[in-house]
Amino acid sequence: MASGSVDEAMRRAIALAARGLGTASPNPVVGCVLLDPDGEVVGEGFHAYAGGPHAEIVALAQAGQRARGGTAVVTLEPCDHTGRTGPCSHALITAGVARVVVAVPDPDPVAAGGAATLRAAGVRVEFGVRAAEAEAGNVAWLTSVRRGWPYVVWKFAATLDGRSAAADGTSMWITSEDARADVHALRGTVDAVIAGVGTVLADDPRLTVRNLRDGTLAIRQPLRVVVDSLGRTPAGARVRDGAAETWIATAAQVGADPEGRVDLPALLAELHRRGVRAALLEGGPSLAGAFLAAGLVDRIVGYVAPRLLGAGPTALAGAGVTTIADAIDLELTDVTQVGTDLRITALPRKREG
Amino acid sequence: MASGSVDEAMRRAIALAARGLGTASPNPVVGCVLLDPDGEVVGEGFHAYAGGPHAEIVALAQAGQRARGGTAVVTLEPCDHTGRTGPCSHALITAGVARVVVAVPDPDPVAAGGAATLRAAGVRVEFGVRAAEAEAGNVAWLTSVRRGWPYVVWKFAATLDGRSAAADGTSMWITSEDARADVHALRGTVDAVIAGVGTVLADDPRLTVRNLRDGTLAIRQPLRVVVDSLGRTPAGARVRDGAAETWIATAAQVGADPEGRVDLPALLAELHRRGVRAALLEGGPSLAGAFLAAGLVDRIVGYVAPRLLGAGPTALAGAGVTTIADAIDLELTDVTQVGTDLRITALPRKREG
Repeated sequence: MASGSVDEAMRRAIALAARGLGTASPNPVVGCVLLDPDGEVVGEGFHAYAGGPHAEIVALAQAGQRARGGTAVVTLEPCDHTGRTGPCSHALITAGVARVVVAVPDPDPVAAGGAATLRAAGVRVEFGVRAAEAEAGNVAWLTSVRRGWPYVVWKFAATLDGRSAAADGTSMWITSEDARADVHALRGTVDAVIAGVGTVLADDPRLTVRNLRDGTLAIRQPLRVVVDSLGRTPAGARVRDGAAETWIATAAQVGADPEGRVDLPALLAELHRRGVRAALLEGGPSLAGAFLAAGLVDRIVGYVAPRLLGAGPTALAGAGVTTIADAIDLELTDVTQVGTDLRITALPRKREG
Repeated sequence: MASGSVDEAMRRAIALAARGLGTASPNPVVGCVLLDPDGEVVGEGFHAYAGGPHAEIVALAQAGQRARGGTAVVTLEPCDHTGRTGPCSHALITAGVARVVVAVPDPDPVAAGGAATLRAAGVRVEFGVRAAEAEAGNVAWLTSVRRGWPYVVWKFAATLDGRSAAADGTSMWITSEDARADVHALRGTVDAVIAGVGTVLADDPRLTVRNLRDGTLAIRQPLRVVVDSLGRTPAGARVRDGAAETWIATAAQVGADPEGRVDLPALLAELHRRGVRAALLEGGPSLAGAFLAAGLVDRIVGYVAPRLLGAGPTALAGAGVTTIADAIDLELTDVTQVGTDLRITALPRKREG
């Protein structure tokens, strides 16, 4: 079998894996392509939702006997433990797969060990094919599992001059409907949406994943988290409606920082414990500033509207920077026009010292 | 002669014209391509500087006898008056050109009439080939001549969160060296650079066109204009050095608006009278706000650095907008990465009413 076909199969497996984004969590997204001994594709699968079959199991079921002597191409090391489903390592061995090609090793100590089990059974295991690409496709899950707290995406919407609302507080709508629909799609890929109580008091947002045309709710809703140090979220706030689960995180519950505000590392640790692997931070400016100042933001997605206001609240405040040399430097990774707006994606650069 | 070659010649003439940007002013940029009766290119020219030969004259000198019976392809209607040089209409007639193809008619009442003179002499004249493209290449000159005040480009530099300096006032440098070099190139295309006295007091800028590597000055420098209602520009300010001409525009000189600040329409009318066709407005935030509020900005060029500050002065203030419905809407026309920064170009949308 030409190695080109393994590479091609991994590319396909990575694309399959991405279809589980937003539904597989708290599990990783995984894709699998099975090749028979001649290099023909005989099975494909991805992990669609927690509790559902793993990618390898779906692909093996498709392939049946044709998997025997073949190659399994998988984006993540096959699991070795019995959770809601049996271990994939055993299923691959039972099916008679001769070789397993993996992009990224499993960092989860509970599930890891698949490669060792496979090798012990005489299966050849190789790592590293399209590893960077597979890693990027699973970055939130991998990052959060490796370090023990969720991958945090800060999303903001602002005018070209950096205002997130006008002087009178009005902000509906800064950005185009296409950009707002894009935000709902982004929410659909995370496990939790985080907002500060100030935003809840000012805008009374729903923080749900909806179809903006008809208002219908997505089947899976991220946990709504209100960072509310003193417990000021009104009883009638929309975030308390039944559309999704909500956690009003107070300082009394989570723990407080020296200023008496919710301790953010403790908040993220608790979210991780609750199965949150990716979280979307949606403001307001001070909460975003506190996350950024603490180095707790992994990715920034800014929707910049081609409009000017010249007054009104800014998208970011209090990030702990007082002089230009201490600015939080970013690496631009993508700039895309969404509707009439620009979506700018960037990663904070690691700071020295 | 195939019409394709006329179209191709106009495309070339427009490219030639652009080489005069920043040096032809207060004249327009103009390009000319001469075709012989067989459609072969026999001459090319552009208008390089005021007082120098017009594009048609340069092309005719190249073509010599080969222009006879041929076609002149010109981006702007040939002039009909004797200024620093003789009328191009006569030169084309004398050279025996049979046909003149023009992109855009000359809106300048002093210079116009070339087409009529040519026709009276039996030369065929056609208008409109690649007119939109030629118009775009000459937009500042055409706009300013049609309405009697300069075409104003507002340039700003800010972080992704809209700050033009840190909380302590430091701003060197928000943007990358490539972006700053791009600003110097932009200054090189205009006749005047405008800044408020606040910017002069805060940053003491030179406002010259320089090579950033070795500090050498460009041969042609735009007029430096300080909008300084009360005449507070220090005697030792860098804008007063000998590197370029400077006009400290005070309210006493120009006239005052109801708040006692320099009257901006009067300022622009005076600049037009001084031969300024394109001006670059470089801040600060309040002056930019005043220009925008008065509808006096024709184009916006924002350099957005992939950095966050969370505090410090914003790029724009006091644009007269208090509620979201009154935001100044822009049309994005270009987004380009310059060094590590984004250069976002936009046009204010015409407002109703």
